[in-house]
Amino acid sequence: MKYNIVVLGSGPGGLKAATRAASSGLKTALVEKADIGGTCLNWGCIPTKMYLGATAANPLLHTQAKAKTAAGSIDFNLPTIMQKKDRFLKGTRSAAEKQLASLGVDILKGTASFSSPTALTVTNDEGTTEVEFDKVIIATGSMPTAFPGLEPDGDCVLNSSHVLTLTEAPESLIIVGAGAIGLEMGDFFSRLGTKITIVEALPNLAPTEDPDVGDTFRKILKREKWGIRTGEKVQSLKTVDGKAVLTFESGETLTADKALMAAGRKPASESLAPAAAGIECVGAGWITTDDHLLAAENIYAIGDVNGRTLLAHAADHQACYAVNHATGKTTAAYESGPMPACIYGHTEVMRVGPNTAELQKAGYTVETSTSMLVANPIAQSYGSTQGFVKVLWVDNKVHGIVAIGHGVSHLVSAATIIVKQQWAPEDVHSIIWAHPTLDEALEMALLAPRKPA
Amino acid sequence: MKYNIVVLGSGPGGLKAATRAASSGLKTALVEKADIGGTCLNWGCIPTKMYLGATAANPLLHTQAKAKTAAGSIDFNLPTIMQKKDRFLKGTRSAAEKQLASLGVDILKGTASFSSPTALTVTNDEGTTEVEFDKVIIATGSMPTAFPGLEPDGDCVLNSSHVLTLTEAPESLIIVGAGAIGLEMGDFFSRLGTKITIVEALPNLAPTEDPDVGDTFRKILKREKWGIRTGEKVQSLKTVDGKAVLTFESGETLTADKALMAAGRKPASESLAPAAAGIECVGAGWITTDDHLLAAENIYAIGDVNGRTLLAHAADHQACYAVNHATGKTTAAYESGPMPACIYGHTEVMRVGPNTAELQKAGYTVETSTSMLVANPIAQSYGSTQGFVKVLWVDNKVHGIVAIGHGVSHLVSAATIIVKQQWAPEDVHSIIWAHPTLDEALEMALLAPRKPA
Repeated sequence: MKYNIVVLGSGPGGLKAATRAASSGLKTALVEKADIGGTCLNWGCIPTKMYLGATAANPLLHTQAKAKTAAGSIDFNLPTIMQKKDRFLKGTRSAAEKQLASLGVDILKGTASFSSPTALTVTNDEGTTEVEFDKVIIATGSMPTAFPGLEPDGDCVLNSSHVLTLTEAPESLIIVGAGAIGLEMGDFFSRLGTKITIVEALPNLAPTEDPDVGDTFRKILKREKWGIRTGEKVQSLKTVDGKAVLTFESGETLTADKALMAAGRKPASESLAPAAAGIECVGAGWITTDDHLLAAENIYAIGDVNGRTLLAHAADHQACYAVNHATGKTTAAYESGPMPACIYGHTEVMRVGPNTAELQKAGYTVETSTSMLVANPIAQSYGSTQGFVKVLWVDNKVHGIVAIGHGVSHLVSAATIIVKQQWAPEDVHSIIWAHPTLDEALEMALLAPRKPA
Repeated sequence: MKYNIVVLGSGPGGLKAATRAASSGLKTALVEKADIGGTCLNWGCIPTKMYLGATAANPLLHTQAKAKTAAGSIDFNLPTIMQKKDRFLKGTRSAAEKQLASLGVDILKGTASFSSPTALTVTNDEGTTEVEFDKVIIATGSMPTAFPGLEPDGDCVLNSSHVLTLTEAPESLIIVGAGAIGLEMGDFFSRLGTKITIVEALPNLAPTEDPDVGDTFRKILKREKWGIRTGEKVQSLKTVDGKAVLTFESGETLTADKALMAAGRKPASESLAPAAAGIECVGAGWITTDDHLLAAENIYAIGDVNGRTLLAHAADHQACYAVNHATGKTTAAYESGPMPACIYGHTEVMRVGPNTAELQKAGYTVETSTSMLVANPIAQSYGSTQGFVKVLWVDNKVHGIVAIGHGVSHLVSAATIIVKQQWAPEDVHSIIWAHPTLDEALEMALLAPRKPA
């Protein structure tokens, strides 16, 4: 078989690439060894959002109960939540498969390996098929990594996929890694009554954000009785006598019913035999790409696997570019523009563009202007008033926006446009800001006095 | 006493005008006969949002309970919700008063009446004060109106202010008027267990929106067991033997514990003696303004009282313009730009710019493109999948956006920027849309196939 384009992997990047390529009239194949949709749909963004959405009533009730404006209790049915989630995933996979079929995309089930710079093999239980291609788009993504001594065993030490298969909330859960996965799953299980202890080797929660974000998160989670251990390295994480036992480098131990290893991902590039196609990798196998997302002649690598940005929408954006470049619609270098990223849950983090340290590292002099959510009537209405919106300015233009607090992920698209367009202060008045909205906290932050970062 | 600027009314328009004027160095007075903050803070946008925020857990639980993913119950404490609301209002009023004082604004308590085109009197319990002015900004707002035979009596027939003083949820509530006030208060009381019947003389719920918005709202509320009577005129609404009795023109009657008259507002202009300053009014007393928001020489009228747009943020925007114009910072005619407006609650409506009929009446040929919320993973996660986002196109440019469904008010700022900038289809790709977000329903709507409206 020969195809104009073979796409490897059916996550957000691969799906977008295959549908775009086929829509452009190219004979297209999509290789997938597991479920259509990849990590995002099956084990990442979507299942976690399904879990958080299904249980969102709990922290709202909890907050009001503290204020004595409400009393009550909610029992969640985790198996039913899981079934509902699985039904939605199945429906979404099926819709995606139908769309691919309607566009004439061949779905090749199996694992792809390059045999040469112009051919690859797809291996499954039934054997191995040789596939020739004009161009390839590698979109194989990433997977949870295992640090030595901290390998998830699926028993009491779980990875981010295992934890989604639990049918009962553990009484206690240790989470290693205070990024999006750890914070979101911690929020979810705490709603089900689980006692959470979160462990992070770096000094702050949400360690890729400015330290004030992590500080605020810490204050909020402390009040929610989370155990928080930051700046401490973990030596081992093991199942011992039916419990998860974490040992710090200091020798101190923590014990819980389960532990979630929520730190670190590695690229899904090994089985590709990248060297056979002249593809170079770095570190754990991240595929090196040039300014056009090319890993080798006629071979693009997009999404997690190229290590640029491990976010579904980054893969999607790169997929559009790769197909445009492959079909000659663009010759310009790839530029992502400001990247939005959120941590979801009752307390959320929203950032668009670089953080303060990244801007400073790039040589910029940064000013910040901030508004506190406590002054916002919508934050007040939910009783969740901790948090802020902060704008990062360079040369009187918006270069980044970060926020933490209840509901701040809702600001993401307005913030993305504002950072992309590098608004000046006067642009804030170019629109009427609806009242009353949480968005007014963004407006206030844009108009607030500035100070050097 | 003589002032450079006297501002009449301390709602969002008046407060903004007074603080802006004083910040510009003008000797400024603010006249207010009741509480600082006006209707928006004390009896409108803010208290209703405090009520909706405090009870937001209920419809989330209710939706999950239907899907058997959760079980439980929540009892709300209305007196405590009211106290919390009152505390927030008091704090906000106090903060506003402090800000005014710090800027040197004199707050004159009382009712203002023009005695001539250059002077007015302020009357309160202690007497009458003569005030001279260089310029006046009238921002007296509006108040609930009473149709003959439907006058709220504060007993069983309530207006939108009375209803906020209830300390107990009625068992049943008739709401007359299916605009923002009626739909929001209906949502709130239904969360407290009240049986709601909503009555609207026009054929659709949310009658200022495109009919498909009202149709969707009807489907959602029917499932929530609301009584819905549209296209039927009410003859009378009275307290009879401790019950609210509504009589349709057809002679049919409805009875409930309470009724809320949520239709119609009238301008608060009568006590101004506008004729003494040469100010013209139309209809129920709406102050006529020119292209510069001038009602007479040196007298601006902003906000509800000029009848242009009865929304807090419209008043705020006009206030900025009026002060800029009064201080010579602008001579251009007033232009609002696209106006955002929302109906809040578990099911929300968000619109920016004109609706379809308004665009067509202005002579435009309108195309629409729509995405359904059922395809959005965030809508799925909350189990509230009814609704849509619809984009109104004129000449391949976005001229309006409307949405209905759970959480759609969160799209308002991005939508306002997009309508203001009249995005073309290719602009949709100018940013990376964060995944997974409800905002992707807006992205999908912008990219969906178009059809003639």
